[in-house]
Amino acid sequence: MNITGIVVEYNPFHNGHALHVQQSKTKTNADIVVAVMSGNFLQRGEPAIVSKWSRTKMALSAGVDIVIELPYVFATQHAEVFAQGAISILNQIGAKSICFGSESGDITEFITLYNFIKKHETTYNLYIQESLKKGYSYPKALASAFKKLDQQNEILDLSLPNNILGYHYVKAIFEQGAQINPFTIKRTKAQYHDQEIPAHSIASATSIRETLIKQKKDLKTIEHVVPETTFNELSNYTNAYDSFQHWERLYPYLKYKVLTTKQQHLKDIYEAEEGLENRITHLIKDTTSFQQLMERLKTKRYTWTRLQRFCLHTLTNTTKEEMSIRKDQCPYIRILGMNKTGRQYISNRKKKLEVPLISTISKLDHPFIHTESRATSCYSLGYPSSVQKKLIQEEYAHPPIIIEF
Amino acid sequence: MNITGIVVEYNPFHNGHALHVQQSKTKTNADIVVAVMSGNFLQRGEPAIVSKWSRTKMALSAGVDIVIELPYVFATQHAEVFAQGAISILNQIGAKSICFGSESGDITEFITLYNFIKKHETTYNLYIQESLKKGYSYPKALASAFKKLDQQNEILDLSLPNNILGYHYVKAIFEQGAQINPFTIKRTKAQYHDQEIPAHSIASATSIRETLIKQKKDLKTIEHVVPETTFNELSNYTNAYDSFQHWERLYPYLKYKVLTTKQQHLKDIYEAEEGLENRITHLIKDTTSFQQLMERLKTKRYTWTRLQRFCLHTLTNTTKEEMSIRKDQCPYIRILGMNKTGRQYISNRKKKLEVPLISTISKLDHPFIHTESRATSCYSLGYPSSVQKKLIQEEYAHPPIIIEF
Repeated sequence: MNITGIVVEYNPFHNGHALHVQQSKTKTNADIVVAVMSGNFLQRGEPAIVSKWSRTKMALSAGVDIVIELPYVFATQHAEVFAQGAISILNQIGAKSICFGSESGDITEFITLYNFIKKHETTYNLYIQESLKKGYSYPKALASAFKKLDQQNEILDLSLPNNILGYHYVKAIFEQGAQINPFTIKRTKAQYHDQEIPAHSIASATSIRETLIKQKKDLKTIEHVVPETTFNELSNYTNAYDSFQHWERLYPYLKYKVLTTKQQHLKDIYEAEEGLENRITHLIKDTTSFQQLMERLKTKRYTWTRLQRFCLHTLTNTTKEEMSIRKDQCPYIRILGMNKTGRQYISNRKKKLEVPLISTISKLDHPFIHTESRATSCYSLGYPSSVQKKLIQEEYAHPPIIIEF
Repeated sequence: MNITGIVVEYNPFHNGHALHVQQSKTKTNADIVVAVMSGNFLQRGEPAIVSKWSRTKMALSAGVDIVIELPYVFATQHAEVFAQGAISILNQIGAKSICFGSESGDITEFITLYNFIKKHETTYNLYIQESLKKGYSYPKALASAFKKLDQQNEILDLSLPNNILGYHYVKAIFEQGAQINPFTIKRTKAQYHDQEIPAHSIASATSIRETLIKQKKDLKTIEHVVPETTFNELSNYTNAYDSFQHWERLYPYLKYKVLTTKQQHLKDIYEAEEGLENRITHLIKDTTSFQQLMERLKTKRYTWTRLQRFCLHTLTNTTKEEMSIRKDQCPYIRILGMNKTGRQYISNRKKKLEVPLISTISKLDHPFIHTESRATSCYSLGYPSSVQKKLIQEEYAHPPIIIEF
């Protein structure tokens, strides 16, 4: 069996994603596609517009064979930790390859880059420290250090988000000694940052969210850019859950948390650095929305993403202590869903796994699981009280989604 | 100047309260009435239906000369600590007497009782411990211990709520060596527990709240049982704040707090005893309202009030540690409002005060003030986001309300 891995958020799953699934399969000549997918919260430090269960259904319907959860402790982090978690899961599950989208589109660039940086590791880290001291944000510091190192600018443009992720996938593969072959598919910048829904059938997830949440447009507006299952799942949300999840629905809890937590405890929150905990306490009193809070928190030193993540960890009460547990390997495999092919594969692969395979999380007692279930509680509280119970219970008791084809 | 003290919640102020103010003045032959009033949260562990500022206006308009805040750390406690705080404030401010309502109505009964219990203190405490071990709630244990001690049942009925409070006022006066003469006015049980608004002009605060909050009746229904200022203040609330504060509006934050707090930290909450913190974590997942949560939490061992207080301290994140600071004396005097007579009195009395007199709380850095401002933040978050800012700022910057007559 040739199995390929992809790392995804599917927020929500759209026609572009369906294409990526097919292209990955073709490019790697795979029989099976396994997607490592973020749960209810995403890398940019924000809630997914629909739950992991809905997004799993969307993925399975579009040809993904197995969906595995990337736990909160990896999924809401900068590229390095994010990639370590994802690669270790793919390695455990027996993926022979990974296929990721990047601005570059050329896999040799990533490998050359990895070797180049490894060779100049000490200097590279020194440059990063220098840039951080100057008050650069972390991604800017990385990019600037790299630019200094690679002055001819011959290798990869590390200021682009998908190149950074790709580099860290490759790095994690080498560092973990994983038997995974990396492949990349070129993606255009426009696809990612578009704010408007185009007339053709491929739109970015960002534009879909903008259209549905900020512009509050009807679902019909995006019908032509998503598969039928996505459309149906999104319709269910507008009916049952009074529309989609987003930060503004969670903002009251964040405000409550900040205003009732003593400073010495707010300091214990992961990513609370350099007085950020004082800043948020001071600013949040006078703000009435998440957007307003973020605009006031923003400075040159912090990226929007970095601040959103800090807000997220504050909301989920995720501390430095619990994030200090080693994260070079994901300590369990949690399957969110599979089709018939995926199921057969898993039942064979099971014996070879070195970490527990869990169907419902109530079966395992691990600190990462505690963090996950707190995160899901927060996610659920953003919905009307009548459906919170169902969502919280699902986190504990939901078995993998099985699609019979 | 003859100054008398009363201890009040005014939730909300009604004609019965106005009568009590006048009767207290007559009975004690006083020139000035000072009311020690609970802030935004009350002894039964619930939020006041309107803020302390509104209730202060109501009191001043009805003849109270000075309103002083009973801080959260006293106001939300059982009778003993509640009374200690109130009496120490009245003593500082120079009250010559206190006049409280009671089911008994006979002050000699309270004094006899105090001496009687003092004489049998060791036995009394032993009986209380025995009853607590049997699984009695604290008030029941007190009443039962006392019944055993006073078998002829000749003194005071200590199972009645206002008699208990009265006893603790008298006890605190003796223990603090305060030069305060106690007086009591008989109040009928019916006044306190009525659920319906009567045709005549005196109704209980309970019935007013029931009518407005649970039965959602129009303000007109209660117009004949409250003074004009109360009616106007309540009208402002229905207009500006989308009606009144009550536990259901704060319940989402309580749920969030319980579901995101690690067990070892929930244990640190004041009044989290005997696994109550596990019980609430387990139960709250499946409840959709505060009423439902309370009904499921309730057992023989705990009174409704005891459980509401635990929920309140959980909501306000008030820990055992911060409540362990000695509370036999209130460490400051915070004036919420005064009329012309009250103002003159205060400006003379100021020099004699042994504790700071504060107008706005931003002027003093004391742990009780931190607790107070966290409590006010919670209280404010129950209102629409557009008015939260105003309410939170008021806590820090609001000067006393001055009425010029």
